[in-house]
Amino acid sequence: MEAVVIRRGENSPTVADVPRPDPEPGEVLVRTLRVGVDGTDREVIAGSHGGFPDGEDHLIMGHEAVGVVEEADDTVFEEGDVVVPTVRRPPAEGSNEYFERGEPDMAPPEACVERGIDGAHGFMSEYFTSPAENLVPVPDDLAEWGFLVEPISISEKAIEHAAASRSAFDWDPDADLVLGNGSLGLLTLAMLEAEGYERTYCLGRRDRPDPTIDIIEELGGTYVDSRETPVSRIAEVHEPMDFVYEATGYAKHAFEAIEALAPGGVGALLGVPEPWEFEIDGGRLHKEFVMNNKALVGSVNSNVSHFESAVRTLGDLPAWFLDDLVTGVHDLDDYEAAFADDETTIKTALQFSQI
Amino acid sequence: MEAVVIRRGENSPTVADVPRPDPEPGEVLVRTLRVGVDGTDREVIAGSHGGFPDGEDHLIMGHEAVGVVEEADDTVFEEGDVVVPTVRRPPAEGSNEYFERGEPDMAPPEACVERGIDGAHGFMSEYFTSPAENLVPVPDDLAEWGFLVEPISISEKAIEHAAASRSAFDWDPDADLVLGNGSLGLLTLAMLEAEGYERTYCLGRRDRPDPTIDIIEELGGTYVDSRETPVSRIAEVHEPMDFVYEATGYAKHAFEAIEALAPGGVGALLGVPEPWEFEIDGGRLHKEFVMNNKALVGSVNSNVSHFESAVRTLGDLPAWFLDDLVTGVHDLDDYEAAFADDETTIKTALQFSQI
Repeated sequence: MEAVVIRRGENSPTVADVPRPDPEPGEVLVRTLRVGVDGTDREVIAGSHGGFPDGEDHLIMGHEAVGVVEEADDTVFEEGDVVVPTVRRPPAEGSNEYFERGEPDMAPPEACVERGIDGAHGFMSEYFTSPAENLVPVPDDLAEWGFLVEPISISEKAIEHAAASRSAFDWDPDADLVLGNGSLGLLTLAMLEAEGYERTYCLGRRDRPDPTIDIIEELGGTYVDSRETPVSRIAEVHEPMDFVYEATGYAKHAFEAIEALAPGGVGALLGVPEPWEFEIDGGRLHKEFVMNNKALVGSVNSNVSHFESAVRTLGDLPAWFLDDLVTGVHDLDDYEAAFADDETTIKTALQFSQI
Repeated sequence: MEAVVIRRGENSPTVADVPRPDPEPGEVLVRTLRVGVDGTDREVIAGSHGGFPDGEDHLIMGHEAVGVVEEADDTVFEEGDVVVPTVRRPPAEGSNEYFERGEPDMAPPEACVERGIDGAHGFMSEYFTSPAENLVPVPDDLAEWGFLVEPISISEKAIEHAAASRSAFDWDPDADLVLGNGSLGLLTLAMLEAEGYERTYCLGRRDRPDPTIDIIEELGGTYVDSRETPVSRIAEVHEPMDFVYEATGYAKHAFEAIEALAPGGVGALLGVPEPWEFEIDGGRLHKEFVMNNKALVGSVNSNVSHFESAVRTLGDLPAWFLDDLVTGVHDLDDYEAAFADDETTIKTALQFSQI
């Protein structure tokens, strides 16, 4: 079968012929419908994140998949069910406490592999197998958008953890700020709008006209151009934020977010930057953190419960938003277009088959 | 009546004769038993924290008080009840949402005054008044230690908020680290020991023999000398910590705590440093935060619920610990000794009267 792979030493993916996998007992064979592309895929291609499966010279890419059950084996699924796979699997040594309690998302990097990212083949192939417990059902009418369940689940978790951090007092957030107008930032902005935030802001560094700015404003949000208003000045220029969601991977944002927060506010950090030394006014930030009861929560990956929430969230997102967000769904013979990263591309997917 | 005050322009407290306060309707007149001294008092004396009441040239000091109800007025209290006052009161403009929902501890600094610290007279006087709702009852047999209820309440809140931040997953902490072997650090270490942490560590920079190191070890904790093992290396030298409690006010600790944390760990920040610019590897810390689901929570002050928890906690602390922690209780004619800050002093209190 055909698969999109990145090979050791190469800096762009290629289509390769690989063996169709055989499901083990308890596993399901899934016929792939679509697989989304995101910034993590670009980091994997660049070699700055993730790694190859042990002893192999290539990685089948892709971690944002939706497919149809082809062989259900003796599982809870039936042939024809639309499903989305989770990403983390136990490491070579075997399972551990995080997997055993259904929280692989809380495992440290060395206690898991990530399909399509780090140490395990992904889903960009005509078929893939997965243990049934790592598959989440999706209604048929959401199949075409099912590749968005994984990125939405990432934000479900981050939002859940951020809210938990404020659960010891009466937290009633009104204003939020999303740092980053990439596809994850825009999905999160739409989620926060749907959650009832009265005022939402989204930071980018784009000139108008720009399709992401159009989406931000159509959602009811305010676009903040970081070239005019740095994160450290947003509280003053706009308003202090009850919730800041960082999806830029720009390390200064993690610390400037403290200044953007309102009293009792929380920042969720999701970016994965490279090492970068810079100066901060650590005394002022520390005092600000304490005197205004602020919090920062790092969040990575997501578990089945977040995928289940994400399926519900996906069903509630407006159709115009999904249409505008997904700027390209490409067949395998046009796979390179799915990895494009220009100012007209927001979110793309590769299509392997149709429902 | 006599009171311990700090005057504008002076850098040490003095005893002054001030009018005995008259309770307003709904207020209680309290005869002061003891008032503790802590690092915040020293910052107030130095002029680096807090401020004088509007239009006044002195501040009655003290925010860690215990007293006996002298006039209960028409309140829930009776004469002779032992009580501890909370610290925050509404600002001059009047009450606000934080006070109305019983969470003055979540107010930003401009939305409150703090008795004995910032903008309102404290409790270091023979009598003080307080609205009944700001008084928490204490069993008679704890009266002598009642001045510890306020500092314990500070940690009750910080520990509650830290645990809340980890409530979205199955958090089962084993190891904790208290940064700072001052009285608040030692009280917190004793609280964490009582909470069931299997391994506790406490950081200081003292040579043996030292009474704080003796207390740490008697509690079952491990003393970490920051001159030998900086916070950034504690995970490696000892073990990664599920919980780090920062009570040093040393700004680098706020950021180094990220490195000391275990996956899924949380740091509570309580220090209030001055501005201080320094370099960090922000990229590495940001990535560490995200990839290991870490959190930082700033915490200041405490509300009635934390005072109530603190009364219960105080009752459970071992007698030897309280005896060793409190190195001096001084009468008013020896008030200067209560403000001493040397290596034989751990916790002191001023005694105004006896029960």
